[in-house]
Amino acid sequence: MTKNKKVNTAILIIGNEILSGRTQDTNTSTIATWLNSIGVTVNEVRVIPDIEKTIVDNVNVLRKVNQYVFTTGGIGPTHDDITAKSISKAFQLNYEIHKEAFKILEAYYKVGEFNEGRQKMVWMPRNANLLLNPTSGAPGFNVENVFCLPGVPSILKSMLGGLKNKIVGGDPILSHTISLKTVESEIAKSLTNVQDDNKDVEIGSYPFFQAGKLGVSIVIRSEDQSKIDKCSSEILKFVNQKKIEIAVR
Amino acid sequence: MTKNKKVNTAILIIGNEILSGRTQDTNTSTIATWLNSIGVTVNEVRVIPDIEKTIVDNVNVLRKVNQYVFTTGGIGPTHDDITAKSISKAFQLNYEIHKEAFKILEAYYKVGEFNEGRQKMVWMPRNANLLLNPTSGAPGFNVENVFCLPGVPSILKSMLGGLKNKIVGGDPILSHTISLKTVESEIAKSLTNVQDDNKDVEIGSYPFFQAGKLGVSIVIRSEDQSKIDKCSSEILKFVNQKKIEIAVR
Repeated sequence: MTKNKKVNTAILIIGNEILSGRTQDTNTSTIATWLNSIGVTVNEVRVIPDIEKTIVDNVNVLRKVNQYVFTTGGIGPTHDDITAKSISKAFQLNYEIHKEAFKILEAYYKVGEFNEGRQKMVWMPRNANLLLNPTSGAPGFNVENVFCLPGVPSILKSMLGGLKNKIVGGDPILSHTISLKTVESEIAKSLTNVQDDNKDVEIGSYPFFQAGKLGVSIVIRSEDQSKIDKCSSEILKFVNQKKIEIAVR
Repeated sequence: MTKNKKVNTAILIIGNEILSGRTQDTNTSTIATWLNSIGVTVNEVRVIPDIEKTIVDNVNVLRKVNQYVFTTGGIGPTHDDITAKSISKAFQLNYEIHKEAFKILEAYYKVGEFNEGRQKMVWMPRNANLLLNPTSGAPGFNVENVFCLPGVPSILKSMLGGLKNKIVGGDPILSHTISLKTVESEIAKSLTNVQDDNKDVEIGSYPFFQAGKLGVSIVIRSEDQSKIDKCSSEILKFVNQKKIEIAVR
């Protein structure tokens, strides 16, 4: 397996419930954390409504500029679950009963329980590859580089393990966090100097509140541990000079 | 104030920390819930990295197809805070010291504390309108229909109240939720019929787990309460026929 230097991905969250504010999306964080661990960088996330044209257009834009696209949501049995149909349109494939998925669900449910509603979940783009679902039977699927996962967080989480050999990542993205009892403005100039000296390392600065006090977490990210270590020691140098305390988080 | 039938908005979450999975975005849900209450529909959310060209391009796409765009993140004092500079570029405006913002922060901080780091926060697009920040002083701003808010959730929340007269919403989007002790496949067909009979009402179906049991929340959304009531009674009709219990959530 050849490692690529940088593997880019987009996540497409499909669901009116996220756009209305009713539901707090947690799948982005779950997928992104997992992807980072296998060396895949999330370039962009989009949250879009359950509208076929919108799904088709976004999938077609994102799949061309990213090595992978992950969608979440819209693969259940109800009328608002239109992801599989939309992906079929995006790839100009027939939307039809997937025989293997049919067999899986026929075996999963008790006799008589594999009803019309549930049968909707085996309609997929022709020749889609199945992504197994150890929690609730109904598989996700991928067509080329577009991977379609369910919206229910616990089910989605349980499916990620099974995806590992389908995704070719680059070098894992490593990170180191230094949390400080200070405010951003106290360290802004020194941190800019470190960033300027280490242009290929990503240094982020994130204020936090803890026990009523302000703090700053500095996050250093790179595929190269030695570069992280170099930045880290440059940061700790100015932290010591300024007599700033380290915060335990 | 004339009410528009539908007012569309996009939210642009700017920040590597969301894309890496390190930080769970909660601002989308906060902003969307507030916008819904004043009759503004969120059409799309994008999460993008702290890269100037990416911010400029996305702002320029989104501001042309939405009545409003809200950005979060990237307006603090550190090197990775590049939203104000990027918005200046997007609108081809000078990026310069905003005199009013300077006065606000000069008065906010004690003598000697308005240091170089903090002064970065008063650099804005020329003639930007300030959005007051009752929590930590440093204002957000808007240029035309693009409103730039901070990423720290508690600060962002405290600023929404002050935005109310700057946003002209449509009719508030009303919603009603019916939660049921059932699974989606049991109600999928009946619910499709209700949706087909009420095409201008948005009906969503969302599975949930509660105390180890599966349930479904049906969310009915419309600007028109009578349409919600009509759908609701049609749904309760089939719920009764199927002897499905209502779930208390």
